[in-house]
Amino acid sequence: MNLEVITTGDEIVSGITLDTNFHWIAGRLTELGFNVGFHTSVGDSKELILNALEIAGKRSSVVIVSGGLGPTPDDLTAEVASLFFGVPLELNKEALYMVEERLRERGRKFLEANKKQAYLPKGATVLKNLWGTAPGFQFENKGVTFFFLPGVPKEFKAMVEEYVIPYLNKRCPNRDVYRVKTIKTFGLRESEIAERLRGIEREGIKIGFSPSFPEVHIRVVARGKEVDSLVSKTVNDIVSRLGDHVFSTEGETLEEVVGKLLFQRGLILSVAESCTGGLLAHRITNVPGSSNYFNRGVVVYSNESKVEILGVPEEMISSFGAVSAEVVKAMADGIRRISNSDLGVAISGIAGPGGGTPEKPVGTVFIGMSHSKGTESKRYLFKGTREEIKVLSSETALDWIRKFILNDV
Amino acid sequence: MNLEVITTGDEIVSGITLDTNFHWIAGRLTELGFNVGFHTSVGDSKELILNALEIAGKRSSVVIVSGGLGPTPDDLTAEVASLFFGVPLELNKEALYMVEERLRERGRKFLEANKKQAYLPKGATVLKNLWGTAPGFQFENKGVTFFFLPGVPKEFKAMVEEYVIPYLNKRCPNRDVYRVKTIKTFGLRESEIAERLRGIEREGIKIGFSPSFPEVHIRVVARGKEVDSLVSKTVNDIVSRLGDHVFSTEGETLEEVVGKLLFQRGLILSVAESCTGGLLAHRITNVPGSSNYFNRGVVVYSNESKVEILGVPEEMISSFGAVSAEVVKAMADGIRRISNSDLGVAISGIAGPGGGTPEKPVGTVFIGMSHSKGTESKRYLFKGTREEIKVLSSETALDWIRKFILNDV
Repeated sequence: MNLEVITTGDEIVSGITLDTNFHWIAGRLTELGFNVGFHTSVGDSKELILNALEIAGKRSSVVIVSGGLGPTPDDLTAEVASLFFGVPLELNKEALYMVEERLRERGRKFLEANKKQAYLPKGATVLKNLWGTAPGFQFENKGVTFFFLPGVPKEFKAMVEEYVIPYLNKRCPNRDVYRVKTIKTFGLRESEIAERLRGIEREGIKIGFSPSFPEVHIRVVARGKEVDSLVSKTVNDIVSRLGDHVFSTEGETLEEVVGKLLFQRGLILSVAESCTGGLLAHRITNVPGSSNYFNRGVVVYSNESKVEILGVPEEMISSFGAVSAEVVKAMADGIRRISNSDLGVAISGIAGPGGGTPEKPVGTVFIGMSHSKGTESKRYLFKGTREEIKVLSSETALDWIRKFILNDV
Repeated sequence: MNLEVITTGDEIVSGITLDTNFHWIAGRLTELGFNVGFHTSVGDSKELILNALEIAGKRSSVVIVSGGLGPTPDDLTAEVASLFFGVPLELNKEALYMVEERLRERGRKFLEANKKQAYLPKGATVLKNLWGTAPGFQFENKGVTFFFLPGVPKEFKAMVEEYVIPYLNKRCPNRDVYRVKTIKTFGLRESEIAERLRGIEREGIKIGFSPSFPEVHIRVVARGKEVDSLVSKTVNDIVSRLGDHVFSTEGETLEEVVGKLLFQRGLILSVAESCTGGLLAHRITNVPGSSNYFNRGVVVYSNESKVEILGVPEEMISSFGAVSAEVVKAMADGIRRISNSDLGVAISGIAGPGGGTPEKPVGTVFIGMSHSKGTESKRYLFKGTREEIKVLSSETALDWIRKFILNDV
C-alpha cells in the first residue's frame, strides 16, 4: 500500500505556518507500521491542488488531504476534488445536518458561508467532524482511496484517529511491525561515526543519522515479523564500536543521564558559569527531581561577582584573565566549597561575537571540575555563533560529568 | 517562474524531524517576493527521490532540493541526480578540495567516507559550502535549474542566501515587492487578539497569526508596487489596539528589547532564580553585550543556598515556604544588595511535575522585583509542562522588567 499526504494552504507554502499536521501524521502512521511515501504541500490554488491530486492518484493507493474545507473563499478543496473526480458538487444532507448541529451546540448562527461546507463531490462518503464545523469526506476513484480532512490540527488529528487509521488497519491487518531505537552520541562527527560503523549494515535493518546539534543521533530501524533481537544485536554492535561517545540508547537527554548517575551515586552537584550564562543550570534543572542532586548555580558574569561569591582572588583574574585555567579552577573550587557539594563544575569562556584576542579567540572556553581528589581544567576552542558556543560548552561540561562519574567515582 | 522545493530524508517522512528547512525557505522566498508553488518531501529511497525529481522537472522552472549530501550510505541525492540527468557521477576536484579544506580548517582527518561527498553528476557546478563539509551543486537540465543543498539547517540556510537568492534576483529583477512586518506580543491569547483586531482588514493586506510559545506573533503582509505606507499604517493601527502587549515590531527578541532598555537607561540588573533554574539568566546573556548591564545571577535551588547567598531568613522560609511572596521579595532584595545593582529580579515557583499542594498547585510562581523605590511581588498560576512553566516564568519576568522601565523609570 502506497500512502501519500497532501497538505494545502497558502500559509504553509509562504512559510507563515509550520506544517505540524504532516509531522504528526507521519510519526503516527510510522509507529503503527505504515510507510508514508510522499508528502506534498501546495498553496490555495485550484490549478496546483488539481496537479497534486493527479500525481498522487497515479503513484499512491491511499491519499490523505488536509485543509481547504472551511467556509471562506480560499477554501477550494471540495471544488477541486469534484473537478478531479469528474462529478458535480452537490448539497450533502448529512453534511448540512452536521454543520448545523455543530453550530447549534456552540450557540452560533448558521451563515450562508457555512452552507458551502456541505457541498461535496457527488458520491462522496461524509466523515462527520465532531470537533469543528468542517465535514470531511472519503472518495474512491480508480482504485485509489482519498480522504479529505480539515486542516485545523485538533480536528485533523481527531479525524485521522477516527476514520483513517481504522480504515488502514482493516486494509492491512497483517502488516510488518516497526521497531526503532535511537542511539545518542556526543563528541564524534557524523563522518567519524560512519567510518566506525562501516560494514555494520544487516539485511532488514536501516541505519540513519540525524545530527541534533551538538549531538549525533543514530536510528536503527527494522520492519518485519520478528525483528526485536535483530535490532538489539545491531544496537549493541554500534555501542561497542562507539564506546563512551554513546550516552543513551533509551531516548534520555544528556542532562537526564547525568542526573540519573548523580542520583544513583548520591552525589551533589553545584555549578559556576560565566560565558554559558545559566544555560548549564537551566539544562540540569530541566530534569524533574533535579533538586535531589543539584544544590545551586551561580552566573558570575562580572569579575567582582567571581571574587565576591566564589572567592576567586582578584590578583588571579588580573594576572591570568577571567578566561583562564587558573580562574576556572578557582571557580570550581569556590562553588564546591560554598555549597558543600561533591562536585563543583565551572565554565569560563568567550562566547562572542566580541571579546576575542589573538591568544584567546572567540570560542575559547575553559571548563573546571573540583572533586574530593583534586581540581582539573580543560581548554577548548569551539566554533559557532554565540548561542552555539553556549550550547557546546554546556554539553561538554555535562559530558565530562558523565564520564567522570562513570570512570572515576 | 515556478519555484518548487523538495526536502529529502527518512527522518522527515517518518515524523522524527520537523521539516524546518522548508518552513524557513518558504518564508524567506515569500518575503523576497517569490512564490513557492509546491513542496514535496520524500524518504531516503532512490526510487521515490527519482520520482519527485521527474515530477518537479515537468512542472517547475527552478527546483531546490535539500538533504542527502552527507558522507553516510543513506545519503543518496547525488547518485539519484546523476541517474535522473543521465550523466555519470565523477570525482569533482573543486568539491574534493573544498571538503579537504573544510576538514583541515577544523583540524580533522580526511576520511574515506568524506571522499564520497566529492562525487557529483558530471557537468554540475559546485556550490562551495563554507559552513560544513557537504558541497552543494547546481545543474541545468531541459530548461530547468536544479539546486542541491545540504539538509543541515545552518548550512542549508547559508547556501540559500549565498547561491539561490542571488540567482533568483538576477532572473526576476522586476517582480512585485513583498512587505512583511512582524508584530510580537505577549500576554494576550490568539482569540483575544483576533477580537481586538476585528475589522482591521484592508484591501491588499493579509494579516496572519503565528503563535510562537509563549508569544503570539502577528504578520502583516502586502504584495504589490507601492505598499510600504499601507503596511506601516496597518502596523500602527494594530499596535494602538494592542497597547503595551506589543513588545517589538522590528523582529527583536524580548530579551533584546529588555537589554536595549537597560543599556539606554544605564541600569544594572541581577537575578535570583529558583524554579527557572538559570533560564532567565541564560536568556538575558544570549544577547551580545549583555555584560554591559547584567552583573550576575544565582540559581538558588536549595533552601540553604537562598539563606547563604541571598540572606533570606531561615524562619521566613519555614513560615511561608520557599514559594511565597515573602521569600521571593527577600530573594529580589538580596540579589540587588549583594550585587549592588539597580534592579534585582527573583523567581520562585513550582515547575512540576511533582511538588504541588492544594494551596500551591504545580504552576504557582512568584516573581519579585526590587528597585530603588521598594520591592514588589506578583503571583501567577501557569499551565503547562515543566519546561513550559520555566519558559512562561522567565518570559513574564522579562516582560515585567520591560514594562517597569517603560512606565516607572
